[in-house]
Amino acid sequence: KKFKIAVIPGDGIGNEVMAEGIKILDTFAAIKGDISFEYQYFPWGCEYYLKTGNMMDANGLKVLKEFDAILLGAVGDPSVPDHVSLHGLLLKIRQGFNQYINLRPIKLLPGAPCPLKDKGPKDIDFVVIRENVEGEYAGVGGIRFPDMPEEIAIQTGVFTRKNTEKVMDYAFKLAQKRNKFNKVTNVTKSNALNYSMVFWDKIFKEIAEGYQDIKTETNHVDAVSMYFLQRPETYDVLVASNLFGDIITDLGAALQGGLGFAASGNLNLEKEYPSMFEPVHGSAPDIKDKGIANPIAMIWTAKMMLDFLLEDPDTEAIIEAITGVLLEGKTLTPDLKGNAKTHEVGDAVCQKLKML
Amino acid sequence: KKFKIAVIPGDGIGNEVMAEGIKILDTFAAIKGDISFEYQYFPWGCEYYLKTGNMMDANGLKVLKEFDAILLGAVGDPSVPDHVSLHGLLLKIRQGFNQYINLRPIKLLPGAPCPLKDKGPKDIDFVVIRENVEGEYAGVGGIRFPDMPEEIAIQTGVFTRKNTEKVMDYAFKLAQKRNKFNKVTNVTKSNALNYSMVFWDKIFKEIAEGYQDIKTETNHVDAVSMYFLQRPETYDVLVASNLFGDIITDLGAALQGGLGFAASGNLNLEKEYPSMFEPVHGSAPDIKDKGIANPIAMIWTAKMMLDFLLEDPDTEAIIEAITGVLLEGKTLTPDLKGNAKTHEVGDAVCQKLKML
Ligand SMILES: CC(C)[C@H](C(=O)O)[C@@H](O)C(=O)O
Ligand SMILES: CC(C)[C@H](C(=O)O)[C@@H](O)C(=O)O
Repeated sequence: KKFKIAVIPGDGIGNEVMAEGIKILDTFAAIKGDISFEYQYFPWGCEYYLKTGNMMDANGLKVLKEFDAILLGAVGDPSVPDHVSLHGLLLKIRQGFNQYINLRPIKLLPGAPCPLKDKGPKDIDFVVIRENVEGEYAGVGGIRFPDMPEEIAIQTGVFTRKNTEKVMDYAFKLAQKRNKFNKVTNVTKSNALNYSMVFWDKIFKEIAEGYQDIKTETNHVDAVSMYFLQRPETYDVLVASNLFGDIITDLGAALQGGLGFAASGNLNLEKEYPSMFEPVHGSAPDIKDKGIANPIAMIWTAKMMLDFLLEDPDTEAIIEAITGVLLEGKTLTPDLKGNAKTHEVGDAVCQKLKML
Repeated sequence: KKFKIAVIPGDGIGNEVMAEGIKILDTFAAIKGDISFEYQYFPWGCEYYLKTGNMMDANGLKVLKEFDAILLGAVGDPSVPDHVSLHGLLLKIRQGFNQYINLRPIKLLPGAPCPLKDKGPKDIDFVVIRENVEGEYAGVGGIRFPDMPEEIAIQTGVFTRKNTEKVMDYAFKLAQKRNKFNKVTNVTKSNALNYSMVFWDKIFKEIAEGYQDIKTETNHVDAVSMYFLQRPETYDVLVASNLFGDIITDLGAALQGGLGFAASGNLNLEKEYPSMFEPVHGSAPDIKDKGIANPIAMIWTAKMMLDFLLEDPDTEAIIEAITGVLLEGKTLTPDLKGNAKTHEVGDAVCQKLKML
């Protein structure tokens, strides 16, 4: 089977890490024999914006719609305000393609550096399901009395029952599938956010009714941030709003060795639209074009794309290959205290994969 | 000078830790000789709610207004929905008395347990200024089509220029006073929250103009969560919205040894209304009445109240006394792997204070 992949390297280190993502896809395809990928590259991003006034083409979503999946590198550059670049590309695709699930595994691989004293790979292995198309990111709001002493800024979160139900339902299904603790943790802040999060808790309870085999727990987002440090081993699947999911997954990234290890999928489960896969890290303009960006998050991201397209357990070998390279410790980028180049890490992981 | 203090022990362990807060105040007053405290206790909280239908008396704010300061233990009990108990007492006082600054020191004391591998007391010493009366906690919102398939929940954050300016101004003043790195970090999320946080950044820039001696930095809240683990030593003063401040100070609490060490002040700088001092921890109903709650956060909180009332550098001796007890390691509560009772820890700290 041939898959059509839209590739958006984007800004900063996006290009460099993307090459390694593609490399692992092709290596995996070559090993399997019966699949292949056809890539089409899109030059969208901040440079494109500076030239054209748009982060992506006006008909961008229409063009992308024809693909089986989208692989994205990174978006953002100091020359363009962040809210412009992100609302013009990344958030536009997430929301425009109703990619309502943001799936973010937090897993400390053996050999990856963990900042916590008494925790290891067996303690840090959970998944955050982040709502991805609405909530705090709805983009609704305004400014009244701009620049006057009475100036007021308004930002409105919008949460719909239908979408919230779907997100929570997926969290419960994933807990069943993972079969770790059969547990879903509801991340909330209903003690303060008296409409949105009270609603969120209500839907969580309703959906939980349908999954008597799954244990539930409700933690406020501030407590979760603390518990990630104190007892990460108690988590299995967490479900969080767009904003809370954003915050706790960056914290989770720190636990698993840094953004160099954080992969994600933006999923439209019904496949009405293509899903998008991207490393959580940003464009890191400070190390752009130096060839030293850590490609592991991108490689892991490519693996997540394979999972979504193929549902083939063999993709786990990619994680094993990464772990092999980490444990060997010879081919690592500077963020991991090595002196290898981005492409050398990609080569090493592909090499290991071929040997598995 | 005599100070009139309103004491609200509240729920759960509130009572037990409060006794130790009072003890340190009286010990400090006895040592100084020229100050004293007059306490009036208020039985407000969840028990009161179950009896009367109100978390506090209807004229509560009017009564409290006559005091020099409010000392609060903890609010919350499983028998009352959190958003009811908190909006009825804690948040009502914060907002009703325009306590627009929530001051939260994050400082790892020698002897306190830190979960991070390579960080110690010299690395973890910063202050979070949290906006405390509006923003995401404005309580504005609603539900449309309740319980129907079309149900929508709306939660609106409201940010005013006047208040935002005052909060940021205080952050810069504090950075001057601390004289650590002369730096303020702006905690934002303007890449996604396209009205409130873009506004927030604008005000930050404006206020920064007036403090050419203070360096500035702007970090997204997700990044801050990660940096707290990776490079806490780079922070000095951070300024954050109500919600972001809530999240990062719980995370900060974990860095400084847990909620047992997290103190806070809710300040009305102009003293139009009394300020309120409270430990960050909750009511911990599971250990209520066992006499094993860690009183250090409450003692530290009492110290912050003294700072606000007296501006007397001698209050630092209270932190030294706590550190002394920690380093000795003989009189610690179970959360710190000791077997002392709450009141024994309070006694030990007072004992040390007398000897300093
Ligand atoms: C860049 C930013 C808009 C984005 C987000 O907040 O979703 C990023 O932090 C992420 O986590 O993917
Ligand atoms: C109890 C809750 C409403 C409160 C808050 O969110 O402000 C608490 O978490 C805090 O940090 O003081």
